[in-house]
Amino acid sequence: MNAPEKFQQLLTLSREPFPASSKSYIQGSRPDMRVPVRDVKLTNGEVASLYDTSGPYTDPDAVIDVRSGLPTAARANWVMERGDTEAYAGRERVALDDGGKHEDRDAARIAQLRQEAAGLQRPPRRARSGANVTQMHYARKGIVTPEMEYVALRENGRREWMADYLGDAARQARLKGNSLGAAIPQIITPEFVRDEVARGRAIIPANINHTELEPMAIGRNFLVKINANIGNSAVTSSIEEEVEKLVWSIRWGGDTVMDLSTGKNIHTTRDWIVRNSPVPIGTVPIYQALEKVGGVAEDLTWEIFRDTLIEQAEQGVDYFTIHAGLRLAFIHLTANRMTGIVSRGGSIMAKWCIAHHKESFLYTHFEDICDIMKAYDVSFSLGDALRPGSGADANDEAQFAELRTLGELTQVAWKHDVQTMIEGPGHVPMHMIQANMTEQLKHCHEAPFYTLGPLTIDIAPGYDHIASAIGAAMIGWMGTAMLCYVTPKEHLGLPDRDDVKQGIIAYKIAAHAANVAKGHPGARVRDDAISKARFEFRWHDQFNLSLDPDTAKEYHDETLPKDSSKEAHFCSMCGPKFCSMKITQEVREFAAAKGLTEQDALKAGMDEKSAEFQARGGEFYIPIHSTP
Amino acid sequence: MNAPEKFQQLLTLSREPFPASSKSYIQGSRPDMRVPVRDVKLTNGEVASLYDTSGPYTDPDAVIDVRSGLPTAARANWVMERGDTEAYAGRERVALDDGGKHEDRDAARIAQLRQEAAGLQRPPRRARSGANVTQMHYARKGIVTPEMEYVALRENGRREWMADYLGDAARQARLKGNSLGAAIPQIITPEFVRDEVARGRAIIPANINHTELEPMAIGRNFLVKINANIGNSAVTSSIEEEVEKLVWSIRWGGDTVMDLSTGKNIHTTRDWIVRNSPVPIGTVPIYQALEKVGGVAEDLTWEIFRDTLIEQAEQGVDYFTIHAGLRLAFIHLTANRMTGIVSRGGSIMAKWCIAHHKESFLYTHFEDICDIMKAYDVSFSLGDALRPGSGADANDEAQFAELRTLGELTQVAWKHDVQTMIEGPGHVPMHMIQANMTEQLKHCHEAPFYTLGPLTIDIAPGYDHIASAIGAAMIGWMGTAMLCYVTPKEHLGLPDRDDVKQGIIAYKIAAHAANVAKGHPGARVRDDAISKARFEFRWHDQFNLSLDPDTAKEYHDETLPKDSSKEAHFCSMCGPKFCSMKITQEVREFAAAKGLTEQDALKAGMDEKSAEFQARGGEFYIPIHSTP
Repeated sequence: MNAPEKFQQLLTLSREPFPASSKSYIQGSRPDMRVPVRDVKLTNGEVASLYDTSGPYTDPDAVIDVRSGLPTAARANWVMERGDTEAYAGRERVALDDGGKHEDRDAARIAQLRQEAAGLQRPPRRARSGANVTQMHYARKGIVTPEMEYVALRENGRREWMADYLGDAARQARLKGNSLGAAIPQIITPEFVRDEVARGRAIIPANINHTELEPMAIGRNFLVKINANIGNSAVTSSIEEEVEKLVWSIRWGGDTVMDLSTGKNIHTTRDWIVRNSPVPIGTVPIYQALEKVGGVAEDLTWEIFRDTLIEQAEQGVDYFTIHAGLRLAFIHLTANRMTGIVSRGGSIMAKWCIAHHKESFLYTHFEDICDIMKAYDVSFSLGDALRPGSGADANDEAQFAELRTLGELTQVAWKHDVQTMIEGPGHVPMHMIQANMTEQLKHCHEAPFYTLGPLTIDIAPGYDHIASAIGAAMIGWMGTAMLCYVTPKEHLGLPDRDDVKQGIIAYKIAAHAANVAKGHPGARVRDDAISKARFEFRWHDQFNLSLDPDTAKEYHDETLPKDSSKEAHFCSMCGPKFCSMKITQEVREFAAAKGLTEQDALKAGMDEKSAEFQARGGEFYIPIHSTP
Repeated sequence: MNAPEKFQQLLTLSREPFPASSKSYIQGSRPDMRVPVRDVKLTNGEVASLYDTSGPYTDPDAVIDVRSGLPTAARANWVMERGDTEAYAGRERVALDDGGKHEDRDAARIAQLRQEAAGLQRPPRRARSGANVTQMHYARKGIVTPEMEYVALRENGRREWMADYLGDAARQARLKGNSLGAAIPQIITPEFVRDEVARGRAIIPANINHTELEPMAIGRNFLVKINANIGNSAVTSSIEEEVEKLVWSIRWGGDTVMDLSTGKNIHTTRDWIVRNSPVPIGTVPIYQALEKVGGVAEDLTWEIFRDTLIEQAEQGVDYFTIHAGLRLAFIHLTANRMTGIVSRGGSIMAKWCIAHHKESFLYTHFEDICDIMKAYDVSFSLGDALRPGSGADANDEAQFAELRTLGELTQVAWKHDVQTMIEGPGHVPMHMIQANMTEQLKHCHEAPFYTLGPLTIDIAPGYDHIASAIGAAMIGWMGTAMLCYVTPKEHLGLPDRDDVKQGIIAYKIAAHAANVAKGHPGARVRDDAISKARFEFRWHDQFNLSLDPDTAKEYHDETLPKDSSKEAHFCSMCGPKFCSMKITQEVREFAAAKGLTEQDALKAGMDEKSAEFQARGGEFYIPIHSTP
């Protein structure tokens, strides 16, 4: 099988709707606002409606050609209607954008690349001169954009089906979440979204050039989101694989995807990814800038970096990781660390700073960067260049000095109405996690926190998705808005397709655990629905409501593959005689058959026996040998 | 390949020592006290010494024949020396012990079973009349047993190699754990162990008939332990598989193993498991009792149950799960639950109670049970029959009513000097976990808590090892002494060999994260050693210090299989140009070459640039179009 065939086959596979699921849309206030949900038809007639990140791929009616990208009509209108942008020729593509350094050697490769991506080229737009086109700018002017309404509808989902599961007041009180300071309303209104964006407590990463986007929000008072990293490295992988990983990532629940590609073909890889992505795409532009200077950090310049920002902004990247908080004076704080600097971008900039004996251009040109961000509505993801790379380095002065700087930069960005979130660690033992959240809230003025894990221990290579899901769930509960996934390959190699899935599922678990703990309205209903299905031995419903229906069914079927087992009142874990749920139902039926409520039946019986035992308690000592 | 060949092959596989590891022993105060550790030889000359649960299997010098069981000499002496036990004929084995209900049909099967297990039969011992042979009894009399000294040496491990990683005072202060009320001394002395056992805050599950045992402690002020469940169900699996799962479980770090077998061959399966186990074995005796009455819960009697307890105590089971806290009056509290009763033993006893309209014989005969326990030193694991089986049922009155009863029963057990731990949930959202620990400590007088997870969400079948590792890590930090693992097959089917490993690794992660957070002395050193190896690109050391060296190496080698890559200063995750650790080292070398300390170099550079930027901040607004 050659590469394009494999590509097509994988994409076909990933388009299959989930079992018993159909794509459905919540209609917004305008005809072109249709917010996707996944409706799961249960065998008892209920329809469970779930948040859906998978985009048009899981809609069998959608015609998708990855060579021309996803449809753009709806959001393109929203951007156009605002009348504050202009189309323009855009920056000229040069061979260096795709790693072409040697005209003779690279010309054919790049011509081929461009030909294959011809259908993905769109004329870029930017803010008209003097205009600011960020969602934060509109929000602060009191404008509720279609993007904000979309987010509100998406966050709420179909609340109707959830009502049945609420239970009585006592149950609701018992199960009430503990928001730890978050302020999540019962219903998210478009106005609430606007207000959260205006005060910087949430962002809607939405480049005006990414019109394929289905908008989403990142903020403490919304559902906790997860990010999946994809991207080829110099050592391995291809464009096709990366696009497939994108579609695969959002299928399993990636809310945003970062393209961390390095090496050759980096510009065109990004065209493929952005044009085919319904979720926000983030990048770390310094990676491409470094490619342009042949990997020599010292040769980086503001001009090359700036050009790269514009290049990527024109392509439609929704957020940029910028390590502007790495100040020259902080580098020495890492000298005695166990693992030094572990952010790729951070280590590159540290090298530049030392070589030039200067403050980094990311810091000195920060307002210039803001100017670019607001011309396209690219959001900042202020990078934590000095995050700890081991538990030993957690919460040290290097880390917190940078965090305070990120707080200062947040205020600079906000002065320009540029949407901003803050990246966080990393490797942090459990008992040191809370301080990260507390310091971030304090110094960064409630800008959304976006953490990588954190990994709670260092000794689990091969299983760092688990070591970090623990930390991610905890910090998500404490208020982190988005959790960057970690795959089983972390520290070891580039994740493949299955690693990506493993990482995403682990992080969906962490994010969902956080939403439940925070008491996000509606978060628990899916748990209740699956628990009810479990108790009623509706096996198919149990599979289909789970985070990964395929695996749940596969595991069940390993030992009990027959269709009849899907109605069986047991599974192979305990077998029929020892199924507690089966026995519980028998207990209930038994009591009912006796014409007693359980309560009557049981209260009656207890008193005498209890009294008898209480009387014996403390009195008898019956040696084992004398017992009959 | 026929079954015995497969068995032998698997056992051979599991005996292979870990890479670069050798079994070593810490010598105790008497020649026959040799406490095993795993010494890992690092490529930089260090030797890392790790807690080792794997028993003689990973000692190439040990001659092991699974048909005659592990060597018993050392602990057999300790028991004999105390002079308070006697050998006796023991209860007569009957066909029913192995599910033989039909003489004609089952005779051949049982004869064959017994023949194969002939080498595993040992004459049982019990307390002399009137004697009490529990570790708690000795502890309360002020006696430090060899078992207690063994535990002390084992908990400390080789502290010598740990000293190098402590770092300076500032680092130690920053990384100090938060014990949340635990009182873990810097060095565990035999006297400390005695005191903890005497006050009931720790147990050493150690049946006098399990002389193959390498003693270990379960208590809040010791390392957090994990339990792995094995056991065939009626639907699947064989004796061979279960023994192999035992060896496999302790290889990966299982501190105790529960044999939850049901179905036929249950007595003989247990012979195989106990005789070949260096770790404590727990069971749920009601499972076998139910088999003896043909699966009809109503037909259970105290006499059958009592006989089963003695049968298993004679075989050497170290702890029994007894669901004595399930009182008749509590059953009705489960009537409106989402998932009713989800403990197998609990549901069986609930059915019995309803059918007979009586308090359960586990409760009414609790002191009779104590008499058996103390004659063999079987520890109680007081079962939480009413644990929640879904987040919806977490922390409800049924659960807490039972917990309070378990507290009462703990005091009854302690009156008999019977070692006792308390089982806990189950399914509990993150924000409701702390209440479980708080209530347990309060009502159960600091008896060790032993929880199943808890699972923080319900929607992750296929990944419940992860959903529950989150809860397990948290509750372990809060004070739970042992974490019962959950495998990926939970709710779906019987775990196979790989599921067992996945469950154990997830729980080693949770337990280690808890130990680090609690500040257990020495817990962090393995993290530091692996982090240092990581920073220094000692790939083999990084693999060999990890929880699963095989998988770490395999993942790394998927893309970079060559031996030369084991010295490479990058991996395929980021590639050579983007390896932050490589760049950090270049930064350090660069600064050194310039003859500057980093601190000098950096402080010098910062002032002017910083001042410049500060001056600009807030002043400039440079529209994108005018920027060059």
